[in-house]
Amino acid sequence: MAIKKFSIMRSNSGFMLEAEGRVVFKHDRAAPALSMGMGEARIAMHHGNFDIEDEVRELCPLSNFEIGEENASVRFSSEGGRWSVMMKISIEDGRLALYFSEVLGAGVERKGEDQQAGARRVRICLPAESREHVYGCGEQFSHFDLRGRKFPLWTSEQGVGRNKATRVTHDADLNDHAGGDYWWTFFPQPTFASSEGYWVHADTSAYSIFDFRHARAHELYFWELPSAVIIGRAESMPALLEDLSAYFGRQPEMPDWVYRGVILGIQGGTEVCETKLRRARAAGVPVAGIWAQDWEGINITSFGQRLRWNWVWNEERYPGLDRAIAQWKSEGTRFLVYANCYVGRGWSLCKEAAELGYLVKNSLGEDYYVDFGEFYAGIVDLTNPQAFDWFAGKLAKNILELGASGWMADFGEYLPTDAVLHDGTPALLAHNLWPVLWARCNAEAVKKARAEHEALFFMRAGFTGSQRWCPMMWAGDQNVDWSNDDGLPSAIRSALGLAMCGHGLHHSDIGGYTTLYGMHRTKELFMRWAEQAAFSPLMRTHEGNRPKDNWQFDSDAETLAHLGRMARVHVALADYLRFAVAENAARGMPVMRPLFLSYPNDERAWTCDDEYLLGPDLLVAPVVTEGANSRVVHFPYGTWIDFWSGTQAWDAKLPGDREFTAPLGALPVFIRADSPWIATFNGARAAADR
Amino acid sequence: MAIKKFSIMRSNSGFMLEAEGRVVFKHDRAAPALSMGMGEARIAMHHGNFDIEDEVRELCPLSNFEIGEENASVRFSSEGGRWSVMMKISIEDGRLALYFSEVLGAGVERKGEDQQAGARRVRICLPAESREHVYGCGEQFSHFDLRGRKFPLWTSEQGVGRNKATRVTHDADLNDHAGGDYWWTFFPQPTFASSEGYWVHADTSAYSIFDFRHARAHELYFWELPSAVIIGRAESMPALLEDLSAYFGRQPEMPDWVYRGVILGIQGGTEVCETKLRRARAAGVPVAGIWAQDWEGINITSFGQRLRWNWVWNEERYPGLDRAIAQWKSEGTRFLVYANCYVGRGWSLCKEAAELGYLVKNSLGEDYYVDFGEFYAGIVDLTNPQAFDWFAGKLAKNILELGASGWMADFGEYLPTDAVLHDGTPALLAHNLWPVLWARCNAEAVKKARAEHEALFFMRAGFTGSQRWCPMMWAGDQNVDWSNDDGLPSAIRSALGLAMCGHGLHHSDIGGYTTLYGMHRTKELFMRWAEQAAFSPLMRTHEGNRPKDNWQFDSDAETLAHLGRMARVHVALADYLRFAVAENAARGMPVMRPLFLSYPNDERAWTCDDEYLLGPDLLVAPVVTEGANSRVVHFPYGTWIDFWSGTQAWDAKLPGDREFTAPLGALPVFIRADSPWIATFNGARAAADR
Repeated sequence: MAIKKFSIMRSNSGFMLEAEGRVVFKHDRAAPALSMGMGEARIAMHHGNFDIEDEVRELCPLSNFEIGEENASVRFSSEGGRWSVMMKISIEDGRLALYFSEVLGAGVERKGEDQQAGARRVRICLPAESREHVYGCGEQFSHFDLRGRKFPLWTSEQGVGRNKATRVTHDADLNDHAGGDYWWTFFPQPTFASSEGYWVHADTSAYSIFDFRHARAHELYFWELPSAVIIGRAESMPALLEDLSAYFGRQPEMPDWVYRGVILGIQGGTEVCETKLRRARAAGVPVAGIWAQDWEGINITSFGQRLRWNWVWNEERYPGLDRAIAQWKSEGTRFLVYANCYVGRGWSLCKEAAELGYLVKNSLGEDYYVDFGEFYAGIVDLTNPQAFDWFAGKLAKNILELGASGWMADFGEYLPTDAVLHDGTPALLAHNLWPVLWARCNAEAVKKARAEHEALFFMRAGFTGSQRWCPMMWAGDQNVDWSNDDGLPSAIRSALGLAMCGHGLHHSDIGGYTTLYGMHRTKELFMRWAEQAAFSPLMRTHEGNRPKDNWQFDSDAETLAHLGRMARVHVALADYLRFAVAENAARGMPVMRPLFLSYPNDERAWTCDDEYLLGPDLLVAPVVTEGANSRVVHFPYGTWIDFWSGTQAWDAKLPGDREFTAPLGALPVFIRADSPWIATFNGARAAADR
Repeated sequence: MAIKKFSIMRSNSGFMLEAEGRVVFKHDRAAPALSMGMGEARIAMHHGNFDIEDEVRELCPLSNFEIGEENASVRFSSEGGRWSVMMKISIEDGRLALYFSEVLGAGVERKGEDQQAGARRVRICLPAESREHVYGCGEQFSHFDLRGRKFPLWTSEQGVGRNKATRVTHDADLNDHAGGDYWWTFFPQPTFASSEGYWVHADTSAYSIFDFRHARAHELYFWELPSAVIIGRAESMPALLEDLSAYFGRQPEMPDWVYRGVILGIQGGTEVCETKLRRARAAGVPVAGIWAQDWEGINITSFGQRLRWNWVWNEERYPGLDRAIAQWKSEGTRFLVYANCYVGRGWSLCKEAAELGYLVKNSLGEDYYVDFGEFYAGIVDLTNPQAFDWFAGKLAKNILELGASGWMADFGEYLPTDAVLHDGTPALLAHNLWPVLWARCNAEAVKKARAEHEALFFMRAGFTGSQRWCPMMWAGDQNVDWSNDDGLPSAIRSALGLAMCGHGLHHSDIGGYTTLYGMHRTKELFMRWAEQAAFSPLMRTHEGNRPKDNWQFDSDAETLAHLGRMARVHVALADYLRFAVAENAARGMPVMRPLFLSYPNDERAWTCDDEYLLGPDLLVAPVVTEGANSRVVHFPYGTWIDFWSGTQAWDAKLPGDREFTAPLGALPVFIRADSPWIATFNGARAAADR
């Protein structure tokens, strides 16, 4: 329901702002909607891991209010007028827009450190219901329903372990400040969607904390006054997503080749790619692409094999790559590479950028080289239109003109807060924006090469606006394990949560990536992860940061056969997946969907984060537990057919649970009995055992 | 210099309060001295380890001020008058007393959660110099000069490892939330002493943070408005300590038997004590006491051997103890036991307390049993005068009437913040007070038994007022290692820092206590620690929580001989130590003294935390590094004689460093050349090799 009008109801001590039957904003002298003041931040970055201390210096309630003419504005102020904020209220495209600006009261001066970017502290309280479920805040890995917790919003490494109760997290903390916590993410966003049929977005890139712990208020806390808070209303969750995704922009449909099999993560040179491709094909694996991140040469560190970060074809490591790409393409297999928004110090691209003055500077005006762990890299200053264009051109030329059809567009989270940028944006405020600039730069590269219908890049970092510029996300660097916060379960959960921020195309490294502190990817993990990936929009393997410690797709014949089976199912689902992807492009309905989008009357659907709907008609219940040969599946109401046997598995007017055996290669998947895609699903089942 | 008068200098926008030539309080509208508001605390306790989250809800500068008649008061208020504080200024006993009380402005109401204990947030800024050194905040283990850091003040376990950069800390965090951090302490105190010749104490037991990071202000932050801030002035640091210790109360002199040798920590029963005592004596170890913590029976847990916490002689484990105590005493060796302020659930004392209604209650009105790790204990409600008297009586009867001459009065840090107390004090405010109540209860037991000249108890927990009630502190539970934050160096540092809060009698477990995560006390560590203890007011060994993993005083003949040598030195120093202890009792001059107390013109003396003066004339430089056979000694100006050789070691008008060989048994110790105690020192040297 588009918001057509709003009304303000006054009382002696406050007012309520109502839109389409819901009080969306509420102020009372005794419970002020706004507080304002100042704070000091202490931020230390270590390899993209941030230690952030926020010291509130002052935080005053803006208790006083004065409603302006025609109810179009409210002026809030603290007693005595030291802090004052004007809120203008308007309706734009069916949404309520609350525009905020700071107003200086009579006799109030602001100067010096008061006026520094990121020095302001603002709390905005919005009315909440105790029964509410809340989703979003970008890509959250540890929690799906965000109610009852607070979420700092700051793009960073996601952490290794991400749970202080685990040994891995402590090992990572001790070694590299890298353990992280439940809220660490590559892709934060000051946006949430509520089960009560509204969504909220705060227009700011400042460090923020969204706190959903209070029964009667959602508390949004910012290091600057957001320029606006946008509130949308909807009569259903799909309608909410449609509105929200229209606001942020939707992802286009994927190039057709993506549906044609798995993308194999391979490293080691042209010959290795060729050999592994032949071997995979011979084992019956449909291969949509080879993804070779070392196309530009390698660099060995204690973390494992790293790349040069020089986004130029490395002919020593990949001789004849241009011809090979053409050959593979003619056989139906694309080639994909890797790039990120940094340029490795000492290599040609970095030198060129430095000479052109295109690198981000430090406070002394020198090029800022960031420590990435045993090597340093410059940051292309994407706020400089020339640098942006230069870098997009390099990506277009070096990647797309070479013949590659896609790339992992990695990183984006490491902008140091003491950097100095071309356009003058304070780094503290540019930090969260960087992933979006980087997404836009990649999109620009595609546009430059006129490769919109062929190229696909995928990113892990994001922020408000990534929806529009980045056509595909991946879940980043999961551990090669089963852990709730950083293993296979977290990769599934993150897809469902990110979908509620309007990004509906998501996949993960099959088998995970991070291989540290004694971790080893097991065969079972690889196989379970591959199963899940088959029922996602994109299948892609990754060797991990220490390939030798990990079970790989070709480590034995059984694994290859398993991958082939799952990839054939995936390919056989192509028409259905294409349909789901088109729904995402048209209406923001994600490909991997939380159950409540279709089954809002099932209370369990609002918290279920280990099952999802793939498109409208498949219920997918991946096995995410080591050693499990069965799992309990939660069914929403209705009739469901077992994907693998074709027999009826559930038929009830109420939701409920049932346990299913789930041998490797047959994760529990169920078909809505009234699906028009039954023939496609039957074909996919047949393809499995072809 | 006693403060005799103060003056207020006004400007257009503020005022300065001067006392004896120093601006001790300063307010300006643009840099207000006071801020006030409210906050929410989230506190979780796990085995005395606290996870504390402070959410500032509101914090408003009290910019406005109005100076009252005769400059005797200032009323501060926030703009609009929402927050208002009256500060009354007076001089009491030569100190400046600033009394604070909250004042309600016209039309301002406070109710409900606003008025909850611990809900208020207050920041008081005091003028600072950038050159200043700051000491105190109770017993701090990781830092001596507190400048440049902030110190939350909350009594708790001290942490295991206490440094997030160490493996041990991470192991302890992972296993028990127990790793801690640099500020964790059993004995916090909202008091600091400045190198600029003033000291400050805030009269509150609320959670506080003293922040010495700012160049121009010390920022004191509280969870309630302190009733007063006391400021003392002095022309020298010894004079400062004299004033400060007069304010808090000083420790009496020690019973004479304490000087007669080492107190051996022994467990296992009467027979074991007898055997070990004979063995020690035969090896030439003077034994002042046997300290047997298991006199009341044991309890085995995964942490190691624990005690029953039933403060009654256990005749099964200690048959004939009453007769043995008398026998040992006649031979010159006292017997000491162990008690704490909890009573082990299931045992007689706990049952009696429960029946009498003397236990602290939970919010449901039930007895509150605290989890101490695999067992539970009730808390005797020391705010109930009857319970207090009952418990003091039990200690007097069960310990002192049994014939024991002292005890370790352990713990005091675990009062849960949701407990309900007899006298109605909110537990959040009573938490920090508990160690003082517990100290007073022990002192009352001594008084009841009229054992003031015989009994000595020693504690680890403390808070404002412990100085008066507790005659001896020990450093708590160091790891059995050399680590800076939790090993031997921290035990020395903590003595020097605590001295600056007016507690000048301090010792530590020889060899440390905590033996977890693969730790083992080595022979070398035991011997180095014993060396240092010989040059402290009291020598006492401890087997540690896992005795079998630790090197013990009688693990071999060489260790016994070493302990004998060091204990004989200690005994031979008795007259000198008695003199130093008397100086502490008379003037608050601690027995172990920071170098700057005597050598204020030596800049290095203000930060030196691994050397100390023992009394006025001995410079002690303990070896605190594993494997070291030498150490660099810092000398203040003057002439110094090597304690062991009697030769001149340093003679200069300037301070400086020199390296000395330091074999086991001969830690670097130096004598002031002009000491009147030379004969005593010569006697001690001779006693070593007797």
